[in-house]
Amino acid sequence: MSEKKIPYKIYLEENEMPKFWYNLRADMKNKPAPLLNPGTHQPMTAEELSGVFCEELVKQELDNETREYPIPEEIRDFYKMYRPSPLVRAYCLEEKLQTPAKIYYKFEGNNTSGSHKLNSAIAQAYYAKKQGLKGVTTETGAGQWGTALSMACSYFGLDCKVYMVKVSYEQKPFRREVMRTYGADVTPSPSDTTNVGRKILEQFPGTTGSLGCAISEAVEVAVSNPGYRYVLGSVLNQVLLHQSVIGLESKIAMDKYGIKPDVIIGCAGGGSNLGGLIAPFMGEKLRGEADYQIIAVEPASCPSLTRGKYAYDFCDTGMVCPLAKMYTLGSGFIPAPNHAGGLRYHGMSSILSQLYDDGYMEARSVEQTAVFAAAEQFARVEGILPAPESSHAIKVAIDEALKCKETGEEKTILFGLTGTGYFDLVAYQKYHDGEMSDYIPTDEELAKGFASLPQF
Amino acid sequence: MSEKKIPYKIYLEENEMPKFWYNLRADMKNKPAPLLNPGTHQPMTAEELSGVFCEELVKQELDNETREYPIPEEIRDFYKMYRPSPLVRAYCLEEKLQTPAKIYYKFEGNNTSGSHKLNSAIAQAYYAKKQGLKGVTTETGAGQWGTALSMACSYFGLDCKVYMVKVSYEQKPFRREVMRTYGADVTPSPSDTTNVGRKILEQFPGTTGSLGCAISEAVEVAVSNPGYRYVLGSVLNQVLLHQSVIGLESKIAMDKYGIKPDVIIGCAGGGSNLGGLIAPFMGEKLRGEADYQIIAVEPASCPSLTRGKYAYDFCDTGMVCPLAKMYTLGSGFIPAPNHAGGLRYHGMSSILSQLYDDGYMEARSVEQTAVFAAAEQFARVEGILPAPESSHAIKVAIDEALKCKETGEEKTILFGLTGTGYFDLVAYQKYHDGEMSDYIPTDEELAKGFASLPQF
Repeated sequence: MSEKKIPYKIYLEENEMPKFWYNLRADMKNKPAPLLNPGTHQPMTAEELSGVFCEELVKQELDNETREYPIPEEIRDFYKMYRPSPLVRAYCLEEKLQTPAKIYYKFEGNNTSGSHKLNSAIAQAYYAKKQGLKGVTTETGAGQWGTALSMACSYFGLDCKVYMVKVSYEQKPFRREVMRTYGADVTPSPSDTTNVGRKILEQFPGTTGSLGCAISEAVEVAVSNPGYRYVLGSVLNQVLLHQSVIGLESKIAMDKYGIKPDVIIGCAGGGSNLGGLIAPFMGEKLRGEADYQIIAVEPASCPSLTRGKYAYDFCDTGMVCPLAKMYTLGSGFIPAPNHAGGLRYHGMSSILSQLYDDGYMEARSVEQTAVFAAAEQFARVEGILPAPESSHAIKVAIDEALKCKETGEEKTILFGLTGTGYFDLVAYQKYHDGEMSDYIPTDEELAKGFASLPQF
Repeated sequence: MSEKKIPYKIYLEENEMPKFWYNLRADMKNKPAPLLNPGTHQPMTAEELSGVFCEELVKQELDNETREYPIPEEIRDFYKMYRPSPLVRAYCLEEKLQTPAKIYYKFEGNNTSGSHKLNSAIAQAYYAKKQGLKGVTTETGAGQWGTALSMACSYFGLDCKVYMVKVSYEQKPFRREVMRTYGADVTPSPSDTTNVGRKILEQFPGTTGSLGCAISEAVEVAVSNPGYRYVLGSVLNQVLLHQSVIGLESKIAMDKYGIKPDVIIGCAGGGSNLGGLIAPFMGEKLRGEADYQIIAVEPASCPSLTRGKYAYDFCDTGMVCPLAKMYTLGSGFIPAPNHAGGLRYHGMSSILSQLYDDGYMEARSVEQTAVFAAAEQFARVEGILPAPESSHAIKVAIDEALKCKETGEEKTILFGLTGTGYFDLVAYQKYHDGEMSDYIPTDEELAKGFASLPQF
């Protein structure tokens, strides 16, 4: 197929959109380790989990076997409002870099939540509504998940209580207004509205918060209010299942034009975007049908894959959640205050952790000033203002494209552009003003986080 | 064609995108009145205008005859990065309103500048580059035009100096950072960097600025720096020409599905979006080939069409620009400080003014709290956070749809959703906190603006 025939943006028709989510676990020989009851250290049962999560989501969480889950029609209708997201050929970036590589990105930022998070938010809100619940609680870091969930809850008429990591709440005052526009209730975390929040505030006065801590507060509110359940925007198996829509659409679009990526790159915080983007490609790799180089990119200041331990850990600071086996820095780890964006979770999706441990993907860590330089370079030629999180993937995509320039290889690179940076302009401003710094935690600092790992 | 067959979003293929801009003036029997030299009161010649504008743009500005202008390939390539913009069927809004009306909107906010302004910015930057200029100067109000121009200049490697209305500069600090990301130089207006700015500051200390004043500053800098020209994001004939891409795409998409709008609605500040959206439809109306109800929506606090005079006026406060015949409140008119969004220009495109005067379109004014209520209602069901400007059109589209509910008419409504509200959250916050007020200028206040009209 002639090079010129590939459009700048590949959209799918509505009838080409995926009708099923793909459950990567079905193709994994080594299944992700089960969640454990923090008291008994036995695998969590469906019954135990259903106090925290909706029933259908519990089923999805525990199901390592079913390969395809039909996407309910109500969710597909909502998807049609903002999906399919465009698969973009980065012609302008390629020309700027003078690389023989062909660069594609799947742009998930063209919806009001500004990120891919909406893909799972609408699914989780749908199942909560179907179960007849009153509302849901959650945490949010950079605010993308909270915004997405607010939109989803507003659509289905559910109450939405969001605990927002305090540093983000302060750095991103406008995020709160978007969530309010969608009718959500937003509290900076740690707060004095929960037992666990009060305890953390007492122990660490002046803390700027962490995702782990906000999760503890949201879970406490969910389990102590009848008709409420907790929902989570990343890490969990169910989330990766819903996010598979990213990879499925990408694959359908690429197949349509006979394109096969050599390298697939995604930023990785809890793993929702990366796990979704790579799902169908990794499936082929696991089944021995194709090979792809898959790269997870994380911040050097929160390096769970590249410097973490593969161990059972608490998902939250308050230790009220089940234990998950994952690459982790320990639930006590909090990134340095100069860390600007999201991707600040101490652990990584159990699915991705297992795949990484089994050698199916690699991981790289990058420093934030280099990430913002890549973000600005990208914005100036591709016209999209990327979120700092997404820019981690941009940075490594550019690195790979420049390697191709040296070697002359015409590799096809696919990366996930998870969202937009409209609410990250405090960080952009710091970068412009030369006030942004990098920080790589020392081994001693990491050791403090590891000390918070459960011993058993 | 079956109702169900119409997708939520209609995208065009790259090869279906318009290759020509449509010059509405070619089909107007009464041509828009020419720009006049403020000194001689004679029509401005191409030579006179070329000190301020690029040569090709001067040609476009003065050309009332050529029906179609080929869109240069370089601009079409840039358009491909963010166009075609989706034409969306507002199924969810229709259901919420329980209206038999069919509502469509053309969404121009899915690019980083967040609005339709990019359509003309890239054209103007292209012609400046082609002429070998060093850079361009401009004004911006809400900041959408400045952002769009920054992106366009960055793409072509042009210097970009933006004078930003002071009240917007203060209410939208993050806009400046987006412009800086694209390498632009942004100054709050009035400023002490120009003669006209210093004069206005002396006359009105503490003024929050106006578009008219920012225009004067930008023009002064353009004409006093070799290699620079001034560019404008609205009002001018050339801008409406470029913006015709909005209407052309809408029409192609609707024709594809056999849809014919009964009512076409657009917000109107200087007229760039409205003039672009309606262009091909108005062309059919002018040629007697079809009929459409066309509604311009403006803020009650800045009502140039509904309460202005049709007269020659200064385009800018400093009176350095040519005179334009338009519906105007007088260049001395400044909207009340509680006015939250854009659409604050004292006049209206000469083309639209003539069409309005000739009875080809109607105008309505709406108050801002009602506009924000419509914005929030829209956001909650359609998932897009609209700009306050765009929400003027939403408000009237909802009004029209509710009328259909009463009468049972199944009208097809098309409105322009010009942009997103990510940078308008100070205003949204005021609305949420019940601190937003309405203001309708009294006849006495309007009389003060009219007193600034040139007498001849």
